[in-house]
Amino acid sequence: MTSVIEAAEKAKAASARLARLASDEKNRALAAIAGAIEANAEAILSANRRDLERARPLVETGEMAEALYRRLKLDEAKLRDMVAGVCQVAALDDPVGEVTYAIELDEGLRLYRVSCPIGVVGVIFESRPDALVQITALCFKSGNAVLLKGGREATASNRALFEIIRAAASDAGLPADAMALLERREDVAEMLKAEGAVDLIIPRGSNALVRFVQENTNIPVLGHADGLCHVYVDRAADLEKARAITIDAKVSYPAACNAVETLLVHREVAGDLLPGLIKALAESGVAMRGDQASRAIVTGENVAEATEADWHTEYCDLILAIKVVGSLDEAIAHINAYGSRHTEAIITEDAAAFERFFAEVDAAGVYWNASTRFADGFRYGFGAEVGISTAKLHPRGPVGLEGLVTYKYKLVGAGHTVADYTGPKARQFTHRRIAKE
Amino acid sequence: MTSVIEAAEKAKAASARLARLASDEKNRALAAIAGAIEANAEAILSANRRDLERARPLVETGEMAEALYRRLKLDEAKLRDMVAGVCQVAALDDPVGEVTYAIELDEGLRLYRVSCPIGVVGVIFESRPDALVQITALCFKSGNAVLLKGGREATASNRALFEIIRAAASDAGLPADAMALLERREDVAEMLKAEGAVDLIIPRGSNALVRFVQENTNIPVLGHADGLCHVYVDRAADLEKARAITIDAKVSYPAACNAVETLLVHREVAGDLLPGLIKALAESGVAMRGDQASRAIVTGENVAEATEADWHTEYCDLILAIKVVGSLDEAIAHINAYGSRHTEAIITEDAAAFERFFAEVDAAGVYWNASTRFADGFRYGFGAEVGISTAKLHPRGPVGLEGLVTYKYKLVGAGHTVADYTGPKARQFTHRRIAKE
Repeated sequence: MTSVIEAAEKAKAASARLARLASDEKNRALAAIAGAIEANAEAILSANRRDLERARPLVETGEMAEALYRRLKLDEAKLRDMVAGVCQVAALDDPVGEVTYAIELDEGLRLYRVSCPIGVVGVIFESRPDALVQITALCFKSGNAVLLKGGREATASNRALFEIIRAAASDAGLPADAMALLERREDVAEMLKAEGAVDLIIPRGSNALVRFVQENTNIPVLGHADGLCHVYVDRAADLEKARAITIDAKVSYPAACNAVETLLVHREVAGDLLPGLIKALAESGVAMRGDQASRAIVTGENVAEATEADWHTEYCDLILAIKVVGSLDEAIAHINAYGSRHTEAIITEDAAAFERFFAEVDAAGVYWNASTRFADGFRYGFGAEVGISTAKLHPRGPVGLEGLVTYKYKLVGAGHTVADYTGPKARQFTHRRIAKE
Repeated sequence: MTSVIEAAEKAKAASARLARLASDEKNRALAAIAGAIEANAEAILSANRRDLERARPLVETGEMAEALYRRLKLDEAKLRDMVAGVCQVAALDDPVGEVTYAIELDEGLRLYRVSCPIGVVGVIFESRPDALVQITALCFKSGNAVLLKGGREATASNRALFEIIRAAASDAGLPADAMALLERREDVAEMLKAEGAVDLIIPRGSNALVRFVQENTNIPVLGHADGLCHVYVDRAADLEKARAITIDAKVSYPAACNAVETLLVHREVAGDLLPGLIKALAESGVAMRGDQASRAIVTGENVAEATEADWHTEYCDLILAIKVVGSLDEAIAHINAYGSRHTEAIITEDAAAFERFFAEVDAAGVYWNASTRFADGFRYGFGAEVGISTAKLHPRGPVGLEGLVTYKYKLVGAGHTVADYTGPKARQFTHRRIAKE
């Protein structure tokens, strides 16, 4: 078996060819991949059944969570979604070759900033075999080679999908080394050390996995360990919106990274909002932990006492921390101190309060009268996402194709030398903006 | 004296205010800073003389390089340039608040990607006191707070400039904590550990400094340790352009990161190009190290034998490595193997050869018939630069204001909840592109 470094170096060589593929060549390959998944549905489901057979006893002994088993299981509907997903990615605009800055420096000397692939992307994902398909489609569309390390429980499913996709892509003219499947336990550690050969690591899985990856590599990592999101109900809030958004943000999928963990309520509306909201949340099975001020309002209700630790906790569960604040400033300060820079929402009818909140809250998504759960690549119109980034530098937020490309500066001269632009008789740069042809 | 963490936390608090300053407020502050430097020229020069007096004996004993002493020395011309530089930054477009993506997700639910400041930028710079002025101007214009750690040899100059700039900025309405000067030796190590408080580190100085910083912090670092640039003379090159560009790229400022280190020449033109070029380079004082093929062509000329180490070496001096290659592919492979992803040039009249070179060479700048020495923020039309990045993710290449901002997604709803978009009766997203208002 080839080592990770060998696979990465072959992928690097293949990535140079991927980088110069035309859009229609990439789209034809994606169409071929979609067709091959459809044509080989039975083989994929049969491989998946082998994984499920190995997994079932583990569920029964409690070694594997039921939810993980459900994510592992493929069926015809999931296969149809996979195929549709690949076709959707094919239909997106090509993110490579976009000119984002164009300027004439001087006569005959033109500078362009042009988007280009990143190179070799290493992806670590857990259980879900559909992740393999989505990630590969996004990487190919963006001209990147991809190293795939799936979960051990999905070995047979991943291998089947990998072989089918690679054969289809290869027949459609993509280099065979543009994708590689890593299967050994030690491959993750090797990949994290492959600086220079691997350009970007994307861990998709638990907070613990992401944190492990972040702490054990010098390669840039795209993703986020924490998703500690807040909803702040301003004193100028429409309380009906506040109620509906809070319930949606907590209840619709509490394990999601974009679910709300802490509700901040302005003192002036806490008395009107909290009693009804807390009742509704309790009816949805939400356990609550409140500060003193909120507990004073809802005496008798089942709101436990919040401690400092609660403001730091991403519950990933039907639990909500609640805090009453005296001002917009206090809300912003709390969010900047405890938030994870993921997604933060304000509920208010006061445009100035939103503008203030937007300018000062330090997060990838800052929402006005909408649920934090909209933070998602598909919902953002990206077709799909490779992850959500809470980093400050590009890319951040849900990351689709655009986050899978970087750029190069292209300078086109006619023999231009710098010496002509220096010294007492220096030529002056024209610095005239030109068309982004 | 306050600790770095205290200064960073105060700067963080100030950065929230900087983030919501209007363009004209920032420009007024920059004009005030320019005016204050002009008005206090004598005090600045007098402080600089104290640094020079301390430095002079070190130059005489050889403990300080003459070049370093020259960079340390301020005079009226340098002060005028400083003032002009600040005014130029003020004249640039405001990089904050630019909308780079706008889409309607559904009726009444609109998503915008809006550029915003990064937060607190920590800058480490050596000798040049003018760097303090340029960096501060760029940070303020981009709405960032800045921690400045200058070289010990420029202590008096930096302190004078810092006090003058801070007073002027503060009088013009910027928060006083938006800039801090760090002076203790141990401050660098503390700053590198200030994750969460400092958002970006920019080391400006030697390769050794940059490498030290990169290896000792988890905070994103903007910069580059190496600048190993190539000029490749294609078989379809105009040899006069090749000659002029190679000499410019090597001789005009050999210590610069964008100077050429290795010349690659296609076998078919090596015989015509090399004898004359090598003569001209030798006359400019350039020492050369060639592979066997190039030395065979220039028998008798003073070209030493190159070893594998030469292809890896950034000489920062009047030394050039020369290698004859058999094809465009070989040139690209050499550059991708030995280059530092900084700036790479091809000399050719063949557009297809350039397109291939542009697509496959992995570097922040890929030039066609122009000197590598154009890689510079001012020359690119950015007004100034905080550094040049060889990283793959944004920002890369010369980094001006645009690299000092990141973005937030702004979602504007009217109480929208995610639950309405899921399940069998899910509303469909419209995903209609809208004006970037």
